[in-house]
Amino acid sequence: MLNPLDLFVAGEIVNRALDEDLGRGDITSRSIVRFGVNAQGNFIAKQDLVLAGLEVADLVFGWFDEYIQIESTVADGDEIKSGKVFARVIGDAQMLLSAERTALNFLQHLSGIATVTRQYVQAIAGTKAKIVDTRKTTPGLRMLEKYAVSVGGGSNHRLGLDDGVLIKDNHLAMAGSVADAVRRAREAAGHLHKIEVEVVTLEQVKEALDAKADILLLDNMAPEMIRQAVQIVSEREPDDRRTLLEASGGINLSNVRQYAEAGVDLISIGALTHSAPSVDISFKIRPA
Amino acid sequence: MLNPLDLFVAGEIVNRALDEDLGRGDITSRSIVRFGVNAQGNFIAKQDLVLAGLEVADLVFGWFDEYIQIESTVADGDEIKSGKVFARVIGDAQMLLSAERTALNFLQHLSGIATVTRQYVQAIAGTKAKIVDTRKTTPGLRMLEKYAVSVGGGSNHRLGLDDGVLIKDNHLAMAGSVADAVRRAREAAGHLHKIEVEVVTLEQVKEALDAKADILLLDNMAPEMIRQAVQIVSEREPDDRRTLLEASGGINLSNVRQYAEAGVDLISIGALTHSAPSVDISFKIRPA
Amino acid sequence: MLNPLDLFVAGEIVNRALDEDLGRGDITSRSIVRFGVNAQGNFIAKQDLVLAGLEVADLVFGWFDEYIQIESTVADGDEIKSGKVFARVIGDAQMLLSAERTALNFLQHLSGIATVTRQYVQAIAGTKAKIVDTRKTTPGLRMLEKYAVSVGGGSNHRLGLDDGVLIKDNHLAMAGSVADAVRRAREAAGHLHKIEVEVVTLEQVKEALDAKADILLLDNMAPEMIRQAVQIVSEREPDDRRTLLEASGGINLSNVRQYAEAGVDLISIGALTHSAPSVDISFKIRPA
Amino acid sequence: MLNPLDLFVAGEIVNRALDEDLGRGDITSRSIVRFGVNAQGNFIAKQDLVLAGLEVADLVFGWFDEYIQIESTVADGDEIKSGKVFARVIGDAQMLLSAERTALNFLQHLSGIATVTRQYVQAIAGTKAKIVDTRKTTPGLRMLEKYAVSVGGGSNHRLGLDDGVLIKDNHLAMAGSVADAVRRAREAAGHLHKIEVEVVTLEQVKEALDAKADILLLDNMAPEMIRQAVQIVSEREPDDRRTLLEASGGINLSNVRQYAEAGVDLISIGALTHSAPSVDISFKIRPA
Amino acid sequence: MLNPLDLFVAGEIVNRALDEDLGRGDITSRSIVRFGVNAQGNFIAKQDLVLAGLEVADLVFGWFDEYIQIESTVADGDEIKSGKVFARVIGDAQMLLSAERTALNFLQHLSGIATVTRQYVQAIAGTKAKIVDTRKTTPGLRMLEKYAVSVGGGSNHRLGLDDGVLIKDNHLAMAGSVADAVRRAREAAGHLHKIEVEVVTLEQVKEALDAKADILLLDNMAPEMIRQAVQIVSEREPDDRRTLLEASGGINLSNVRQYAEAGVDLISIGALTHSAPSVDISFKIRPA
Amino acid sequence: MLNPLDLFVAGEIVNRALDEDLGRGDITSRSIVRFGVNAQGNFIAKQDLVLAGLEVADLVFGWFDEYIQIESTVADGDEIKSGKVFARVIGDAQMLLSAERTALNFLQHLSGIATVTRQYVQAIAGTKAKIVDTRKTTPGLRMLEKYAVSVGGGSNHRLGLDDGVLIKDNHLAMAGSVADAVRRAREAAGHLHKIEVEVVTLEQVKEALDAKADILLLDNMAPEMIRQAVQIVSEREPDDRRTLLEASGGINLSNVRQYAEAGVDLISIGALTHSAPSVDISFKIRPA
Repeated sequence: MLNPLDLFVAGEIVNRALDEDLGRGDITSRSIVRFGVNAQGNFIAKQDLVLAGLEVADLVFGWFDEYIQIESTVADGDEIKSGKVFARVIGDAQMLLSAERTALNFLQHLSGIATVTRQYVQAIAGTKAKIVDTRKTTPGLRMLEKYAVSVGGGSNHRLGLDDGVLIKDNHLAMAGSVADAVRRAREAAGHLHKIEVEVVTLEQVKEALDAKADILLLDNMAPEMIRQAVQIVSEREPDDRRTLLEASGGINLSNVRQYAEAGVDLISIGALTHSAPSVDISFKIRPA
Repeated sequence: MLNPLDLFVAGEIVNRALDEDLGRGDITSRSIVRFGVNAQGNFIAKQDLVLAGLEVADLVFGWFDEYIQIESTVADGDEIKSGKVFARVIGDAQMLLSAERTALNFLQHLSGIATVTRQYVQAIAGTKAKIVDTRKTTPGLRMLEKYAVSVGGGSNHRLGLDDGVLIKDNHLAMAGSVADAVRRAREAAGHLHKIEVEVVTLEQVKEALDAKADILLLDNMAPEMIRQAVQIVSEREPDDRRTLLEASGGINLSNVRQYAEAGVDLISIGALTHSAPSVDISFKIRPA
Repeated sequence: MLNPLDLFVAGEIVNRALDEDLGRGDITSRSIVRFGVNAQGNFIAKQDLVLAGLEVADLVFGWFDEYIQIESTVADGDEIKSGKVFARVIGDAQMLLSAERTALNFLQHLSGIATVTRQYVQAIAGTKAKIVDTRKTTPGLRMLEKYAVSVGGGSNHRLGLDDGVLIKDNHLAMAGSVADAVRRAREAAGHLHKIEVEVVTLEQVKEALDAKADILLLDNMAPEMIRQAVQIVSEREPDDRRTLLEASGGINLSNVRQYAEAGVDLISIGALTHSAPSVDISFKIRPA
Repeated sequence: MLNPLDLFVAGEIVNRALDEDLGRGDITSRSIVRFGVNAQGNFIAKQDLVLAGLEVADLVFGWFDEYIQIESTVADGDEIKSGKVFARVIGDAQMLLSAERTALNFLQHLSGIATVTRQYVQAIAGTKAKIVDTRKTTPGLRMLEKYAVSVGGGSNHRLGLDDGVLIKDNHLAMAGSVADAVRRAREAAGHLHKIEVEVVTLEQVKEALDAKADILLLDNMAPEMIRQAVQIVSEREPDDRRTLLEASGGINLSNVRQYAEAGVDLISIGALTHSAPSVDISFKIRPA
Repeated sequence: MLNPLDLFVAGEIVNRALDEDLGRGDITSRSIVRFGVNAQGNFIAKQDLVLAGLEVADLVFGWFDEYIQIESTVADGDEIKSGKVFARVIGDAQMLLSAERTALNFLQHLSGIATVTRQYVQAIAGTKAKIVDTRKTTPGLRMLEKYAVSVGGGSNHRLGLDDGVLIKDNHLAMAGSVADAVRRAREAAGHLHKIEVEVVTLEQVKEALDAKADILLLDNMAPEMIRQAVQIVSEREPDDRRTLLEASGGINLSNVRQYAEAGVDLISIGALTHSAPSVDISFKIRPA
Repeated sequence: MLNPLDLFVAGEIVNRALDEDLGRGDITSRSIVRFGVNAQGNFIAKQDLVLAGLEVADLVFGWFDEYIQIESTVADGDEIKSGKVFARVIGDAQMLLSAERTALNFLQHLSGIATVTRQYVQAIAGTKAKIVDTRKTTPGLRMLEKYAVSVGGGSNHRLGLDDGVLIKDNHLAMAGSVADAVRRAREAAGHLHKIEVEVVTLEQVKEALDAKADILLLDNMAPEMIRQAVQIVSEREPDDRRTLLEASGGINLSNVRQYAEAGVDLISIGALTHSAPSVDISFKIRPA
């Protein structure tokens, strides 16, 4: 469930989406049905999916009339089987017709992300690793996409450039070395922030540990190399304050378990948000 | 190329995307490089792709400093081979580092759409049909996604609910019949608007022609049935003012040519915008 | 009655109008009556008029307190006789005093437009022609002014530059010829848009018909010449798909019927919106 | 000339006007002329008029391209003879075509107000009275309309409810008496504000003078009664600190001079802004 | 009590304050308490103070949930003794925790201003002078700070540059002389505005009186010189229409009474708003 | 120096401040000097101060005309002696007059904060402790006030509720115990965030260390108790990964050094931002 502040942000995103779609108004629906005729619309899953975005779809209908609310016995995060009528909405027909496409666009997109995330999470079940997202999100929808990841069972990496220090390859290219970069970040960042740094060799792993980075991002390492990195850390640090390890790059559904079993704490997957295909959901209206 | 008004709208979308990513500021880049150090960044295609969004990426960098401009010898719509360094940008390192992800998010998403669209367009090359998009776009990005479709060689269906009368299944469920729906639309719509109506049977095709609909959307018909619909229209109407025919539903890259050869004027594909995977592009910075 | 989306837009216009009038606050009313004293205000027609804008006036009062609502037994579009108390409102006196002028400014302006429109509509009663408005509206008030035209019995021409293709004299000056202009528009415009073109000679009428324009705007032609244009069209086209004809330019209340009887489908009148004088309405408050 | 702050406000009004007209874009001009072709447009007076709004029209063109500027040898406030080409603009043809209607809507409306105002000002030439406007302005355009009044030679009454204390009939209905109302206003208003009160009888004139109102609004008094009111004031007060007198109600071009000659300081005319007809101006484009 | 319009402006200020504090959300409170657990929070005065801003604090809580309302038996303007629990609020614990700091920031700042103002007001009790504020307010908070002054017993000088004509030293430097400056202001300002002018010598006092300024700002004059200025005015003008006199500059709690007793009407104190220290208030939450 | 993003935010704050002050416009300056007359204004320190906000003042003038820029040989953070003319600005007199008060309001407020901060920083010179600010800032000005603290030599605590996990007394009241609260925060917060917890007893210090809190906020402890807390930590943890200690509550200029010498890493002072008096700066204009 979206918390109150995120629901407020979602409302602004919904406003823009409707503004974008409605323009000067729905000239078709206005002409076909007169205002004041009630209808019922049913949402039907046309494939197996993990639901995400029901509250957002609700905001879409609520924009037209605060008394139109989606009724459903399922909730975000639930797995819905193909064919199931999982939600319905009753209200003015003109409003349902105008809201339909925007509501579906959110539901299909966010459920697409939740569905893919759930597959990754299930693929590493039983390991200690967590699936996390990235900043490779669709512009304007980050908060909702990260919410869909969490609904799918994943965890969120930082929400934006202000939400954590992550030193990446391009930062290192400017800083000169891992050690220098970590030192500068430590000096400049607030005392409440940890420092994460991207490393691509085992040498860099050691350099980062020496520099007392808090988290290491092991980028584009094969599972075997990841395993060696994990071992280096284990040998140098006590278990209860061990530097966190995150794997990224070249990871997909068929190999993700190997990364998890290599012993990392976090596995980040850009495709959760940048390439999840929309799931198929239909909306059928009839007079109420 | 984006026209001036769309460029202005793109600017607002870019502002929101940066606002979303920057929050209180890029705490990593600020700490790693001091303001005032120049760097160069190169965009590299990591797969074959059709480019879309170069001007949008340019707006991202321009947000930080109007004097930072992307230099490139290619343009939106060009096919870029994997491995090619297709653009570069020179400017303050801190700004390049802060802009990188947002610029890539736009480029990768829009080029993803253009790349898929180009595949569809090429699949029907030589027929008279056009590939068109739908309103199944990512909320907030419709204008840019429709632009990416056009850059890929497709045409745009209506931009929103105010941009054309399209009577769909749910409208028909409320109106009772194709004939009634078309009549009501004709009466209420402005005199500059054509009337398009969705039909799913050959009976409805005839009913819509009798009602003088201007365009027929043949939804979920198999190519053979499409062919029959085309024939019905050809038999009833002179060539120079023939009702336009559009096919939609269940169409993919492997069967799209059958639809085109069945004789329709337009083929609409929701997947162009709702499920095109992001293409792989990297951005590498070095001191300038 | 304003539809829900237009009511929302009206709300934004009302907000700006009140912002403009209130500035830092109504320093007179605040000092004269203390907050919490109820009053009643009556709207009185000081001339015969066609009412338009009652819901807009209601939004003005509702801005101050959502529980203040205008009560009335009449509605937009009704003809009100001079002297009639046609609406009343009860609420906090300070709020009524602050709202009064803005509410009247909307009511008097919009009713002015509806009143003039009704005169034109009555002048052509019995002919098949429709009175339509233009884009010659007061900046910022187009939607409301077009609504007032419809309330007066007129029809709306396009709502803006995106709402229809209308090739005018200045476009022709750039395109070179009617034929070229219509062809270019046909190629570039979406398949849901009709093409209207302005013509000033009978030669151009024929050229536009040859180019298969969907609508002809007969500009500044005398009624007799209009009649000839109608005949040209009738001779070349079947009745059921005849090109629409619109007359404009130099038309006023005393000659509008001649244009209607000449056989055009549409008569557009800029003065409906750019020069309709405000009607006289007063608002009288007394303690409640 | 608009001062810098008002120019800024005008810019926002222009933005909204263009937003209102452009919507998703000018689909006609885009299709007729390709971007990058220059044209010249000339503004031509089609009637005698007092010009107002040239800078506003300039903002309209400047919205599209800051390098497009209106060139003219005349300025706001100048009288333009019918037939005169009074300004021209050179720039991208697509932009000129898209800007035309909005620029003209401002120019024609504001010049309409300036033209009527000038007539009133000339009608009372040689008297000591000033023509002033009211708050009966078009919602959203008050600042520009008041500017047009000043350009026409009139003076501005208060700009809004915060810009001066004016006790009107409805305030008096709540306050009980002129004396009470003036006293309350004196206590509550800031020490920099004068107090104006509406009076309709000679008794009230005396009551207001006793209450030390700073200005009297003589509403709906015939010129002869006005004259008596002037005399009452003259008898009671020294010339150098005399209470100001303003006449309003039932005043038109044919009787305004009688009111001025009756000795008032100010004559307020609502029709300057609520009923001034648009003046006729055309804009003709040709390739440059 | 804030009037309705000011309450609306306060709402916008509160929105910005919360936006500023919340950013992407309260990551602490979200993690500590789950949504849906009720708590009670008490406001406790940690020093003697004059309360101001209770409605603003209420808006802060109401932003999170319109049903959360501050309950209190005191009101703005009341004197609260150290140790008193003067208000409480019950609602979702997460929301109370997120709102706490922003609510306190407003309450402590505004009560600080009210508390200092009350001290000045009491220091001149029994004289005819009023304590007034200045435009030396914290950017963005002027309306609220001026409200806090009034709650403390002070009066408000002009609210902004549009709310009165006040000719200061820098204006005089440009105008050349007091006489010229007053004359120009009289000509240009609306007829509802009085003219106040700053003077620093007794010569200027006379010059300003000759020029018929409505109010004199006696800047940086010692009490004895103020007394002389008062005498000059008394000798020249009848009591019932005497030019108002305002003292400013170098006035503090220990000498303010001398200024009041010197006979001025108004004493303006910048420190009321620019240097009032925050008062100490705590907020203690416990499960409800 | 403000970084580019903060400069952008500052621009929005400046816009609102000017909007607040200007309202409908500066009616005094407009009437006294005609537009187009140049003047020079000098900023003069009327007391010793640490400068902060020069760029913000520059934005104020730049709002009126981008070509007006403050010239100065000093910069934010510099100590300015009383009497020094530290900056000047040349431009249109009307604009300088309108900008003056708002520019001064920023400069005086921010320099006030920097001046006080510098005093605290100097008071603990030579110890390892840092002076940090709090979230007790003036609503709407947090970013600028935190910038002024940094200019004064202090460090910034978290910028808002999203910028770090800080468990305070009210959180503990809901969580039940320090241990529980820290555990919940650890589970819910992103992996890049450290956990800080407020403790008021030495028992809680140990409990928090056991719970592996990253930072301890020692609230309202006397210096001697602080010293004991420092010792507890030193005994349990290796020097290179020691839990950070922050002192707060009851600290002022006369006792701050005792807290620093007690061995804490950070000392937070609310009064830096909520009670710093404005410093005295004047601005004198003369014709240029």
